[in-house]
Amino acid sequence: MTSSYGTLGVAVVGTGRMGADHVRRINEVISGARVAAVVDIDAARVKHLADGINGCTPYTDPAAAMDDPAVDAVLIASPGPAHEAALLDAFARDLPVLCEKPLTPDAASALRVLEAEQALGHRRVQVGFMRRYDKDYRTLKALLGRRAHGRPLMLHNKHRNADTPPGFTNAMMINDSVVHEIDVTRWLLEEEITAVRVLRPAPTGNAPEGLSDPQLVLFETTGGQVVDTEIFVNCGFGYQVSCEAVCESGTARIGDDHGVFSNTAGRWGGGITPGFVERFEDAYDRQVQRWVDATRRGEVEGPSCWDGYAAAAVCEAGVLAQASGERVAVELIERPALYG
Amino acid sequence: MTSSYGTLGVAVVGTGRMGADHVRRINEVISGARVAAVVDIDAARVKHLADGINGCTPYTDPAAAMDDPAVDAVLIASPGPAHEAALLDAFARDLPVLCEKPLTPDAASALRVLEAEQALGHRRVQVGFMRRYDKDYRTLKALLGRRAHGRPLMLHNKHRNADTPPGFTNAMMINDSVVHEIDVTRWLLEEEITAVRVLRPAPTGNAPEGLSDPQLVLFETTGGQVVDTEIFVNCGFGYQVSCEAVCESGTARIGDDHGVFSNTAGRWGGGITPGFVERFEDAYDRQVQRWVDATRRGEVEGPSCWDGYAAAAVCEAGVLAQASGERVAVELIERPALYG
Amino acid sequence: MTSSYGTLGVAVVGTGRMGADHVRRINEVISGARVAAVVDIDAARVKHLADGINGCTPYTDPAAAMDDPAVDAVLIASPGPAHEAALLDAFARDLPVLCEKPLTPDAASALRVLEAEQALGHRRVQVGFMRRYDKDYRTLKALLGRRAHGRPLMLHNKHRNADTPPGFTNAMMINDSVVHEIDVTRWLLEEEITAVRVLRPAPTGNAPEGLSDPQLVLFETTGGQVVDTEIFVNCGFGYQVSCEAVCESGTARIGDDHGVFSNTAGRWGGGITPGFVERFEDAYDRQVQRWVDATRRGEVEGPSCWDGYAAAAVCEAGVLAQASGERVAVELIERPALYG
Amino acid sequence: MTSSYGTLGVAVVGTGRMGADHVRRINEVISGARVAAVVDIDAARVKHLADGINGCTPYTDPAAAMDDPAVDAVLIASPGPAHEAALLDAFARDLPVLCEKPLTPDAASALRVLEAEQALGHRRVQVGFMRRYDKDYRTLKALLGRRAHGRPLMLHNKHRNADTPPGFTNAMMINDSVVHEIDVTRWLLEEEITAVRVLRPAPTGNAPEGLSDPQLVLFETTGGQVVDTEIFVNCGFGYQVSCEAVCESGTARIGDDHGVFSNTAGRWGGGITPGFVERFEDAYDRQVQRWVDATRRGEVEGPSCWDGYAAAAVCEAGVLAQASGERVAVELIERPALYG
Repeated sequence: MTSSYGTLGVAVVGTGRMGADHVRRINEVISGARVAAVVDIDAARVKHLADGINGCTPYTDPAAAMDDPAVDAVLIASPGPAHEAALLDAFARDLPVLCEKPLTPDAASALRVLEAEQALGHRRVQVGFMRRYDKDYRTLKALLGRRAHGRPLMLHNKHRNADTPPGFTNAMMINDSVVHEIDVTRWLLEEEITAVRVLRPAPTGNAPEGLSDPQLVLFETTGGQVVDTEIFVNCGFGYQVSCEAVCESGTARIGDDHGVFSNTAGRWGGGITPGFVERFEDAYDRQVQRWVDATRRGEVEGPSCWDGYAAAAVCEAGVLAQASGERVAVELIERPALYG
Repeated sequence: MTSSYGTLGVAVVGTGRMGADHVRRINEVISGARVAAVVDIDAARVKHLADGINGCTPYTDPAAAMDDPAVDAVLIASPGPAHEAALLDAFARDLPVLCEKPLTPDAASALRVLEAEQALGHRRVQVGFMRRYDKDYRTLKALLGRRAHGRPLMLHNKHRNADTPPGFTNAMMINDSVVHEIDVTRWLLEEEITAVRVLRPAPTGNAPEGLSDPQLVLFETTGGQVVDTEIFVNCGFGYQVSCEAVCESGTARIGDDHGVFSNTAGRWGGGITPGFVERFEDAYDRQVQRWVDATRRGEVEGPSCWDGYAAAAVCEAGVLAQASGERVAVELIERPALYG
Repeated sequence: MTSSYGTLGVAVVGTGRMGADHVRRINEVISGARVAAVVDIDAARVKHLADGINGCTPYTDPAAAMDDPAVDAVLIASPGPAHEAALLDAFARDLPVLCEKPLTPDAASALRVLEAEQALGHRRVQVGFMRRYDKDYRTLKALLGRRAHGRPLMLHNKHRNADTPPGFTNAMMINDSVVHEIDVTRWLLEEEITAVRVLRPAPTGNAPEGLSDPQLVLFETTGGQVVDTEIFVNCGFGYQVSCEAVCESGTARIGDDHGVFSNTAGRWGGGITPGFVERFEDAYDRQVQRWVDATRRGEVEGPSCWDGYAAAAVCEAGVLAQASGERVAVELIERPALYG
Repeated sequence: MTSSYGTLGVAVVGTGRMGADHVRRINEVISGARVAAVVDIDAARVKHLADGINGCTPYTDPAAAMDDPAVDAVLIASPGPAHEAALLDAFARDLPVLCEKPLTPDAASALRVLEAEQALGHRRVQVGFMRRYDKDYRTLKALLGRRAHGRPLMLHNKHRNADTPPGFTNAMMINDSVVHEIDVTRWLLEEEITAVRVLRPAPTGNAPEGLSDPQLVLFETTGGQVVDTEIFVNCGFGYQVSCEAVCESGTARIGDDHGVFSNTAGRWGGGITPGFVERFEDAYDRQVQRWVDATRRGEVEGPSCWDGYAAAAVCEAGVLAQASGERVAVELIERPALYG
């Protein structure tokens, strides 16, 4: 992709926690798009939000926003029950959509959306199963895809949350939490899920009354694989998501704080980064982003000329020390006030 | 920061490996900036590069590019010996600069730049010591800053490269490689380096003739700390950068593939991510970036309505299975051709 | 315990792989016992074995061996179907027994043994579930026992073998392999198992025809816990046994090559050894055992006087170097031929 | 080795912390030896100790103990300054000796011992550098020995103690602590140490007045290797000893709680145990030792017939569940009082 394509004007529908975060992301983090419209039933909220963004119009009606000529695409982040109508509005205008999960809250409405998109004759929707964009999951997917350890036979998933907000129910453990493992299972294995079982141990004393926490959810797939998922939403110690694929000649696990961990051919461990680009790619991106951000604010941050000078002086001493084998003192001028 | 500030027009000076990568980064990865000018002594190369970018002018002279009214800031990625002149050109126009390391190749020229910036009366330069923007180094810096394990006493650094390009010299081991540990030492400890020693073991048979590889470089600091750095540029197995801070009541290490690893109070280990935002922040960013990129190309990628429908169907079965304790089969329609 | 108690004379019944290994263990590794009798239906084999052991008599009949006045206790390592008769023989003579697992091959015969021991009025049998003596399992048991992370809610077990011998059956996956997880579950949780489920994914291509490998075995307990066990006996990559206990406020895992690994209170990791005794306990034991073994063979091994002298010389140089801050050369005499 | 050799009668000289621990070890842990004599200048102490051991005579004079006809070998665990005399006494009687480190407290006296042993014409002394018997160090030694990653170029050692006893001096950091790294360096690399440097950072506030803690000790070897050792004896968090060998094509590290950790050929990690014998070797040893110990005390411990019966019953249910794919309940009799 090059910048010869125009900047994408996005309408963000729904400006709650996820929607507001997507507005910030499009404005400040990613390249090639801008927020052209924001939509929320709360008119005051959406007006305030739009006021802070160059060229952004507030709407309370998704269809009206989609009619705005500055809008090229739609990001739906409203509550699940509002998704179907917004998706149909976008289809009516043939607009591309990024729709936060769930697509819709139940299978019947999802099927209606599916049929509407087919009526268009081409895909318009990307669903927000963001784990497919996680670096570790992608590496695991690639490893499975090239059959690095043979065919996958089982998956062991763990999905742990420190605690739950008020009102969290057993059904939400499936619909809001395990739904990610449902997508991960289908995506990693490239098979559909054919059956589900749920085992419910005696619950932790830390769960609210009525919540059966943890649970063990078991999937069978069209490929004959068995998948188990521990879902534990009041584990107390933090957020932790892991996935171990058991394959014919090895296993591969992600989510234990060290990239992909494999057992194979008599060795446990993982891969070593081949070079500095892979190791420090994110640092390079962040460095330039911070410089651009500070410069646009009229500020200067980060390593200074003093840092550059001091490094040069130590390098000179280092090269002398290397040649002589002796201790070499480093000489610096007094630190100027500008770099104080 | 909000988008009420204008997009920053950047002149990229030098379009070799690093410069070309910065052009790509500004165009495709980060937010709020665009490449307004590219500069290289190779006129054909720079013309070709500019042709692919909307509103970008090619130059062979840095000063001319800096006079372009579309240019708000300068990113210097030319070879080190060319930095001083380009920096002085930018100072003459009072332009903000991101200058790749080294600031300049030696202490005397760095001092001249330092004095020129002081004459301006304000900072204009950010030097490209990008490790300061690495997530792990930042976490380590924060841990040291809050004296989590008491005062730092020593640093143990390891800096390993798989191999070296032709012509790599002993001096380059200091100037191009250890220079990062020099900056990291000064930045993490907030002390200057006062003396250097270099110990040179019998070299590996895998190093080119004349290269004394590996070496052990020792720093002393104004704060009395001792810092050792293994520099091994033909280690063969990959790229690996690690840093262990030994403090009064614990140690903290980064670079071993699992965030910050601490020894403290009878326990080894690291921190658990508190929530999904921290864990999947990058995935969210990548998800939206990929959607924007695909949309601008006129394509649709990623999880489809079929994925949304299948997830909804499995969730429904899961909630039934949860309530009944039994195996519940999942019913799906035939997969439509559109999602084949 | 002190050596004022006499050395225990043990009859080892069955001298196949496990029996022969127990003979070696009693002779060469542990303290306080000797092999007084060996029993096998193969008379030549048992004669040959006994000939190599001081004061050891060969038998083909377990009962005859148990009548030998030199026999104080019995170790049963014969095939499972022979256990019941040998146990009843030992009960008839009121002899202490260490019986390799299984106690007997089925529940009915095990019940008969149970009743026979009760008729004696006191316990005489220790069953060879040796995982209860593994350092990591013991640490995990202790952690659960003191409710370090609250009540245990689930166990996740993995039991992997590189491959199976000819003739290995699905039933043997339960009776010979998962039997260890059965004991571990009962011992760690201090609950009985109330129900079992087995899920059988499409098998690996590396398993012999007819073997459903891997399988997922699910237990429910009297305490309401749910336990899953991956049993995978042709995993190819090695032998690996792990167990993760999921508790109310943390998890603890063993078997991943680093002692007990916990998630708790925002941190992952494990415990640091408090002192050198714990760290090098085994090394001390091995050191003295090797010295005794070599001495009894009339040999001298291990670190020599030369090693002691060289260490003393380096220490002297080290103390000088410590005081002076300078490089101090170490002076050694020529290495004498005796230490060549 | 077989038990056709007689049990070795050992005189333990010195019954302080280390000596008393060796007495326990010979009596209760290892095979093939017994404590025939104990020696200490404290007559009451040594009498009390000998009273608790079958056939053990107390002495206050090492030479007298060595004249005891029940004594076949000598273990010297007295303070370092007493070693030379005891060693010469043992040489005079041509007795095998295991001598705790240090051989003697300085190079001159060590040289006298060396010459005395040469006068005997054969080796009689094993020095107590017990790290050579540690499983991890032995694995590292073997890996270096077979040049698994090419020639070793550097060692990075860390030696950390939680705190120091009163009176601990800078010289003791070398003589009592770093002496282990001195031996490890010589043993792993099979080279002598040719020079020493010591760098002393500003000390931790947790060290007693006058102790320069931590320090960085640097060795050069006859083979041209460079070895650094962090010695930190008031680190606070526990006891930790690690060693990383940097070789031509990979590194190998021990002491980080997971056996040998290697970087090589694009992968980090370690080896997987090939089979259950290697994994549970120690558990088997401990199991039988505990059974022998309990039996000699007239007690029965460990897994009972009830455990054997319960396992058999669950196995039966498991095999049924495996065949049917259904949940199978486990039926147990009431637990008899004998196993309560």
